[in-house]
Amino acid sequence: MRILLTNDDGVYAPGLRALRAELKKLGEVTVVAPAGEQSAVGHSITLLTPLLIQEVLDENNQAMGWAVEGRPADCVKLALLELLKDKPPDLIVSGLNAGSNAGINVLYSGTVAAAIEGAFFQRTSIAVSLEYTKPKPLNFPLAAEYARKVIEQIVRQRTPEGSLFNVNIPSLEKGPVKGIRAVPQNVAAYEETYDRRIDPRGRVYFWSGPDFRCPVPHPDSDVSALNDGYITVTPLQFDLTHAALLGRMKGWEWSL
Amino acid sequence: MRILLTNDDGVYAPGLRALRAELKKLGEVTVVAPAGEQSAVGHSITLLTPLLIQEVLDENNQAMGWAVEGRPADCVKLALLELLKDKPPDLIVSGLNAGSNAGINVLYSGTVAAAIEGAFFQRTSIAVSLEYTKPKPLNFPLAAEYARKVIEQIVRQRTPEGSLFNVNIPSLEKGPVKGIRAVPQNVAAYEETYDRRIDPRGRVYFWSGPDFRCPVPHPDSDVSALNDGYITVTPLQFDLTHAALLGRMKGWEWSL
Repeated sequence: MRILLTNDDGVYAPGLRALRAELKKLGEVTVVAPAGEQSAVGHSITLLTPLLIQEVLDENNQAMGWAVEGRPADCVKLALLELLKDKPPDLIVSGLNAGSNAGINVLYSGTVAAAIEGAFFQRTSIAVSLEYTKPKPLNFPLAAEYARKVIEQIVRQRTPEGSLFNVNIPSLEKGPVKGIRAVPQNVAAYEETYDRRIDPRGRVYFWSGPDFRCPVPHPDSDVSALNDGYITVTPLQFDLTHAALLGRMKGWEWSL
Repeated sequence: MRILLTNDDGVYAPGLRALRAELKKLGEVTVVAPAGEQSAVGHSITLLTPLLIQEVLDENNQAMGWAVEGRPADCVKLALLELLKDKPPDLIVSGLNAGSNAGINVLYSGTVAAAIEGAFFQRTSIAVSLEYTKPKPLNFPLAAEYARKVIEQIVRQRTPEGSLFNVNIPSLEKGPVKGIRAVPQNVAAYEETYDRRIDPRGRVYFWSGPDFRCPVPHPDSDVSALNDGYITVTPLQFDLTHAALLGRMKGWEWSL
């Protein structure tokens, strides 16, 4: 199996390195990842500036893949259309992200956007994130082992090509992982705050507050299951059409 | 009616100015938009740098709203949580974008992301884009008049709060608009290319090709109807869960 590995924390992120080591047990891994950190960039793509690339070696001086001066979704696009066009990957993995991507945060996530981009190309794609609990450092090697086990089991199910999954691993500081749950994305809003400040020149600016809190997650959702200490697996799709409302709209009369 | 107007082309974009002039016929309009151009930024948000704001006047030196040094989604978040918290808008409009946002391009679009952000806050939100046909300049005033008529008719339907719509106006160079159609988002992939080049220092880089072509759009979709000269209205939602696949996954057995 050929695996394309990308992320949004950048090609030198420890989460990517740990996941690469585990994925090598499943097949041939090529990394095409952003040169620098790209968190919360969502499904940005680069149209108006060039995408510089550079070959990257691993810690043993072996070819690992490419660093791209672009977004996570650019990396997947460039890998499939150019860099790996002669050896197309069977599977695309994005991660291991430092911080969970559950609930509506899925829409802000560069990690998930890279996987969605893979699904655009009809490749099975899996985003993997590790919940972050301050102030302890993240145990990426153990989380990557969990991630590999989950990915292995997903692949074994032989879902249709282009299937798309969002996997979250609970903070390993909360105690042993309780199990794996297939759950829907939570859609409730988060509580957010801004911190208003004045700069030395008298200009107003705002900092986004540190916490995105989801006060009342649905009990059967990724946010709840992750809070409860389960690894969550959420199958995703990218048709944003609101089918029920579209049905009602068929009766609307329009004029120009 | 109080309307929050934003966009991804920036506060000084002619599409925003034209749409503002039309929306003033429907209510009180406040602009909170990015200070500069932010196309194809998707649902990026700004977490790690401060959001500078500046009050902006219109062509008659009247207060128009704020320019934000951030993403379209930041503008909506900041407007609802801070700038307009004492006068919350009844409606959020994002546009008028220079270029269509249909099919899977919806996921790359900063214009649409701003509307999705509004829906996160349970506000009815409408993204509006004008198809771009080179090389003619865009007729924003006429397109904005069409946009206002569509928005007026959507509002009159009194859909639930938080309803979300993606409106596209066909290129006005193709002849008279044929009508308005409620259609689903097209999900077929686009044909894309990269142009590989070598810089003067010998480094490889790629430019994204100029055209995103959707070779076989579904006949009942936003892409087809727009191609055919109709204004398209697509109701959206932001639950990315693949419900059918999730149903099948309930039978999967997992191990750790």
